[in-house]
Amino acid sequence: MDYNFEVDTMAVGKRLKRKDADTKVTGEAPYAYDLSFADEHYLKVIRSPFAHAKILKIKIDYKELESLNVTAGTANDIPEKGKNVLHVIHDDWPLLAEKVTRHVGEPVVILVGPSLVSVEEASNYVSVEYKELPAVFDPVEAKDHPSIHIFEENNVCSYWQQKNGDIEKGFSDSDIIIENEYRTPAQEHAYIETQGCIAVPEGHDSITVYGSMQCPFYVQRCIAEVLGLDWSKVNIIQTTTGGAFGGKEDVPNQIGSLAAFGAWLVRRPVKYLLTREEDIETTSKRHPAVIRYKTGITKKGELKAIKVEVFLNTGAYATLAPAVLYRAAMHAAGPYKCKNVDVQAYAVTTNLVPFGAFRGFGAPQVLFPVEEQMDRAAESINMDPSDFREMHILKVGDTMTFGQILDQSVGLEETLSKAREESEWYKKRKPTPTMKEVLNDQKKGIYRRKGLGISTIFYGCFLGAAGKIMSRSGAYIQVEPDGSVRFAVGTTEMGQGMITVLSQIVAEELGIEYERVHMTPVDTSRVPDSGPTVASRATIMSGRALQDACEKLRVLIYDKVAIKYKVKATDLRIKDFKIWDQNNLTALLSVTDAIKLVYQERGQIAVAGWDIAPSTHYDNEKGQGDAYSAYAWCTNIVEVEVDSQIGTVDVLNIWAAHDVGKAINPQTLEGQIEGGSLQGLGYGRYEEIIFTPEGRVLSNNLGTYLIPTTKETPNIHSIIVEDPWTEGPYGAKGIGEQPLMGIAPALTNAIANAIGIRLNAIPATPERVWAAIQDKIKEEKA
Amino acid sequence: MDYNFEVDTMAVGKRLKRKDADTKVTGEAPYAYDLSFADEHYLKVIRSPFAHAKILKIKIDYKELESLNVTAGTANDIPEKGKNVLHVIHDDWPLLAEKVTRHVGEPVVILVGPSLVSVEEASNYVSVEYKELPAVFDPVEAKDHPSIHIFEENNVCSYWQQKNGDIEKGFSDSDIIIENEYRTPAQEHAYIETQGCIAVPEGHDSITVYGSMQCPFYVQRCIAEVLGLDWSKVNIIQTTTGGAFGGKEDVPNQIGSLAAFGAWLVRRPVKYLLTREEDIETTSKRHPAVIRYKTGITKKGELKAIKVEVFLNTGAYATLAPAVLYRAAMHAAGPYKCKNVDVQAYAVTTNLVPFGAFRGFGAPQVLFPVEEQMDRAAESINMDPSDFREMHILKVGDTMTFGQILDQSVGLEETLSKAREESEWYKKRKPTPTMKEVLNDQKKGIYRRKGLGISTIFYGCFLGAAGKIMSRSGAYIQVEPDGSVRFAVGTTEMGQGMITVLSQIVAEELGIEYERVHMTPVDTSRVPDSGPTVASRATIMSGRALQDACEKLRVLIYDKVAIKYKVKATDLRIKDFKIWDQNNLTALLSVTDAIKLVYQERGQIAVAGWDIAPSTHYDNEKGQGDAYSAYAWCTNIVEVEVDSQIGTVDVLNIWAAHDVGKAINPQTLEGQIEGGSLQGLGYGRYEEIIFTPEGRVLSNNLGTYLIPTTKETPNIHSIIVEDPWTEGPYGAKGIGEQPLMGIAPALTNAIANAIGIRLNAIPATPERVWAAIQDKIKEEKA
Repeated sequence: MDYNFEVDTMAVGKRLKRKDADTKVTGEAPYAYDLSFADEHYLKVIRSPFAHAKILKIKIDYKELESLNVTAGTANDIPEKGKNVLHVIHDDWPLLAEKVTRHVGEPVVILVGPSLVSVEEASNYVSVEYKELPAVFDPVEAKDHPSIHIFEENNVCSYWQQKNGDIEKGFSDSDIIIENEYRTPAQEHAYIETQGCIAVPEGHDSITVYGSMQCPFYVQRCIAEVLGLDWSKVNIIQTTTGGAFGGKEDVPNQIGSLAAFGAWLVRRPVKYLLTREEDIETTSKRHPAVIRYKTGITKKGELKAIKVEVFLNTGAYATLAPAVLYRAAMHAAGPYKCKNVDVQAYAVTTNLVPFGAFRGFGAPQVLFPVEEQMDRAAESINMDPSDFREMHILKVGDTMTFGQILDQSVGLEETLSKAREESEWYKKRKPTPTMKEVLNDQKKGIYRRKGLGISTIFYGCFLGAAGKIMSRSGAYIQVEPDGSVRFAVGTTEMGQGMITVLSQIVAEELGIEYERVHMTPVDTSRVPDSGPTVASRATIMSGRALQDACEKLRVLIYDKVAIKYKVKATDLRIKDFKIWDQNNLTALLSVTDAIKLVYQERGQIAVAGWDIAPSTHYDNEKGQGDAYSAYAWCTNIVEVEVDSQIGTVDVLNIWAAHDVGKAINPQTLEGQIEGGSLQGLGYGRYEEIIFTPEGRVLSNNLGTYLIPTTKETPNIHSIIVEDPWTEGPYGAKGIGEQPLMGIAPALTNAIANAIGIRLNAIPATPERVWAAIQDKIKEEKA
Repeated sequence: MDYNFEVDTMAVGKRLKRKDADTKVTGEAPYAYDLSFADEHYLKVIRSPFAHAKILKIKIDYKELESLNVTAGTANDIPEKGKNVLHVIHDDWPLLAEKVTRHVGEPVVILVGPSLVSVEEASNYVSVEYKELPAVFDPVEAKDHPSIHIFEENNVCSYWQQKNGDIEKGFSDSDIIIENEYRTPAQEHAYIETQGCIAVPEGHDSITVYGSMQCPFYVQRCIAEVLGLDWSKVNIIQTTTGGAFGGKEDVPNQIGSLAAFGAWLVRRPVKYLLTREEDIETTSKRHPAVIRYKTGITKKGELKAIKVEVFLNTGAYATLAPAVLYRAAMHAAGPYKCKNVDVQAYAVTTNLVPFGAFRGFGAPQVLFPVEEQMDRAAESINMDPSDFREMHILKVGDTMTFGQILDQSVGLEETLSKAREESEWYKKRKPTPTMKEVLNDQKKGIYRRKGLGISTIFYGCFLGAAGKIMSRSGAYIQVEPDGSVRFAVGTTEMGQGMITVLSQIVAEELGIEYERVHMTPVDTSRVPDSGPTVASRATIMSGRALQDACEKLRVLIYDKVAIKYKVKATDLRIKDFKIWDQNNLTALLSVTDAIKLVYQERGQIAVAGWDIAPSTHYDNEKGQGDAYSAYAWCTNIVEVEVDSQIGTVDVLNIWAAHDVGKAINPQTLEGQIEGGSLQGLGYGRYEEIIFTPEGRVLSNNLGTYLIPTTKETPNIHSIIVEDPWTEGPYGAKGIGEQPLMGIAPALTNAIANAIGIRLNAIPATPERVWAAIQDKIKEEKA
């Protein structure tokens, strides 16, 4: 056959306009705030003012509440068949605190009334008596704390390890040991749209909850268990979601359940939208972490040993910490070949707000140290840090630090070479100055110095071995008689472009114009539990499930065409929106006409698709396994200009080279790279939640919690590398999180290159850089 | 194997509580009226006051409208890509009249505003200039009318015939010819809930319409075409529907499209609920009909020839008339063996409101004459009318009047014998008196006389050959991890009990408790076009599609169980909510645990089911064919007491024996028999829409249009006969319509038995009975 059916795609690989572009630009997109139901009620949550306290008594003046038409709910009012648990992984998280509160802002009582004013007023008639208890906020201190027990005896709610080779021998074979303790901050998601859900009771045993969320199936289970309903009587519909970044992974379990519990009490729709302050104060952020890192190398630059201790501060409840910690542990030794590795990772409960998922999911916390260590190692032997990395990065056939052999799709080397090339690394990068040189320059009036920093990182795509049971995805496709298509999936759009990319896949698979392919809002009653929309898995998992459905649909369509045209169904192919007989290269009819034919012949034209991710397995006893099905790879180069006197850091350029397997839509992919890079820049340079000594969030709005604005946005150079993964749709892997992950260390490495200081903590605020300059001055003087 | 897996069903055949009982009784069920959306607007329709008129000018004072925030829409405002057509069968029905109006109440302009008051006020600023045209209201007169052309040249919008044998020879072989012209009235559906839809625009190219309706897929196509949208961007969701009876088959095309057009104009939700008066005046009713009937028999009672002419009055637009006429034509010769048959049936347009679907769908109109003729024939040879019918009714192996051979499931004889037995027919039924005897009794003070009448009828189940292309149905089933089940179908619940019966089928097929099986609201985006919910097809068609889905699901479940228990999947069976190995009669695990296992193993647990009805074919040229896939059968016996002086008729007892194949739920089935019998009693005894000479509905509310109330409800004795149809789920056929169809003639035959008069028209109002008494007195005197 000399006719190539693979050339000239119909949709995949094209820069097609986002499906949600128009409605988002015009303001028509329905966010949770925009939805209203007749007689909807509102909710106020009475929260603990203490980080750790006994609840002695809850006093409610029901008479006053009644006069306001306000209903109060405590843990005691949860239906008999239900339970006071917000299920995530462990079942330690209550809907409402009963005997003890474990963090500031923990919900204790809800008030439901016909207006926000009414519930506000009603809150004057509720008082809770507490007895304050000692609290702990630092994970290292909290681990095995003698008297404060938040999670079981030792406060350790999860533990993962990597073990490889002989760590002691590794260090004894090393010439140089680099050992540091790093700290990373709590990062706020700062999604444009705050959390919000609307719960609508239907009949006496059913409820539908609409809301801004990533993981409707989590919310479904949670609410079913809280209210004691059949899961199939709880229906969750995602509203247009204005950003999530992991912040709407587990938190909507709480928001949705509070709204649902409220709705159940008053048997009316209940709308619960959080203010920015309530949202920042009481919902999850990126886990702060303490990482102790020890690297051993030889003078020749051989990487002999890596030893890491990770302490994730999980806050008051485990929530997603076991899963976040798994990813932190798996990424803690970096994308390098090293035979002697020991990673010990702990998730430790404290009396802060529960921390949770955030783009990168544990990896950014460890990649900052990983890449700082690599740079410091290179520095110690006066090697170019990119050359040093090049010596050690993983390639096809290599074994990862946890023993997994990479058999395909390892584009790290290509990202490194392209990033260096496009940034003109070797030409631009100047030797790192000593502080003496810096101070001398200052005397000449030269304060601002440029620097280039690099990071080479990796991302274990999808849920990996720890989340294996959720690594499945459903899809439903229904073709209409006019040849337009609807499809449903269980993963969500939160701004990342999933609807667009999945529509392209369906359009390509069925040979139907992209413009005529439409996704229905995500709704737990349309596809079975498809796992969470996290781990950069949406395109791949829903894409594969849709491919499965499309394959079944093509069979149904081809069968009818084959009968009518007296050809073999197996000889039929779709190209150029037509169905061809590949034997004689004839276009028999358009796909649209074929669909009309199927309707005419009363053929089935709707199917359910299904997919499970390729299997993974991790043996935590051994600290070895196939941690993830596939890996994405990335090199970041950051150019900064640092004011050596006052410590301000301006970022001029980011080169971000990502191996994504295949760019289904290069435009939305670049959007992900740009957005992720900027959020990574926020993590590395600006963002840090400040807690009071009592454990309360101080920086509770976007005036005190700073994120980069357009003004702080550097030139971001997206470089797409496509080293296809044979299991992904059209070769695609994931891209959602990776763009954020390597920015912070490339930035701190660039600062180091500019003025010769090293940071053991991020963000690189002027205060922190200035302090490091002062330390360095002292050090060089000493 | 000595273990019978068929005994002791889990759900099918049981008197289980209706799924919608609780929500309907408590008032929680969400009817269209109960739904509200933020900023919803309201609609008023400016309608034609004339039955036939030219529209000369539409004057709208836009300035005044603007001050009221009201928007007006005429045919000119329909989007460019859309069209001014409400598609049903022919495309003659406009959304809004453009140049001509063809019936009183036809929509011409819509007004949309923020309140009902505002659109009412705004209507003062809209005026339409008309030039009245001559109108025609009688179908016989309208057919081939020389000057009034409503539908094409001859006003005949549909024609069907039956031809069998040699009709002339049939009559010449007959000893007795019975020839009469019958008239049947327009019957109003009188559903408790009036028509209503709410259209909600979503983004700039999508709309969801919620409403009270039978056929969401009709509405979807209509709105897509009116607005010029992809069908998959138009989503229709049925709200709880308070009765329909055919009245919500095609009419919601109009109601929904008006609301959608209004919503499109103002880009806000638009709620359009009809008042009772607007509903009765402007929406469809049962087609009035004129039937000319000629029957030839021998003195021995042989049925030699049947000749029928049917004229259905379709009103101003064809809408469903071609389909209704098909059913009228196919039922016009009755369920009898007769070799010489000639049925000519015409649907003729007039300047009345468009008539449409109504329980029985053309059959009640012809069955009244059919059964009157049979009674009169029996009378003419002094034979008991039930014995006369017994001579001629169809049995297995017989050929129907249109040539179809009946190979199974013909329970008519059994219904006849059971009805006679339970009613004590032979014991109770007295000889029909002469008028002289009646008048003599009156002299003795005896005015009230009892009588027993009978009808033996049949019902062609499902859409039949004329609707073959729509004889398909989809289903979707999703099993949740807790073992509860949701399913979706494309047919609707409108009170008939479909949700209950389908839930029983799913429960039975999957071995899951009935209480844990839940149906999702009908929504065009959940299953492909499954045809309309008409023709008593919901249980069978959706039932079969669900069986298909359940079979696929069982395979998916058995596969995982087989692996775990090391047995053959094909050896597994479900019984008593457990999965058994039928080889060694071991219960391996509960179905609920099997579902957990599937989730654990990440197996697919949602499927789309599909079904097409067994094929039918009708050759209208020949007047012969296999008209329907299956037939239900029924004998009705009615006992009346007639006041021979004033003509009032009280109905004392109805015996209704129905062969339904299989009663999935005997209780809801009895509900259908009781409700249908009562509505049939309304048709025969009370109900008649009165039109003014100008073609306007006069009896436009339930004070002037009388339906039987509880007080008029006789004892209804439901007799269920189960002669299974092998293609139906568990043997079931349809039951929705048949209970209504044979009541009117059994009633008029009972009146005849009571006082010796014959009616050529229904309903048997006191006026009509009294007039017949006077005629009879004159006749006997003459």
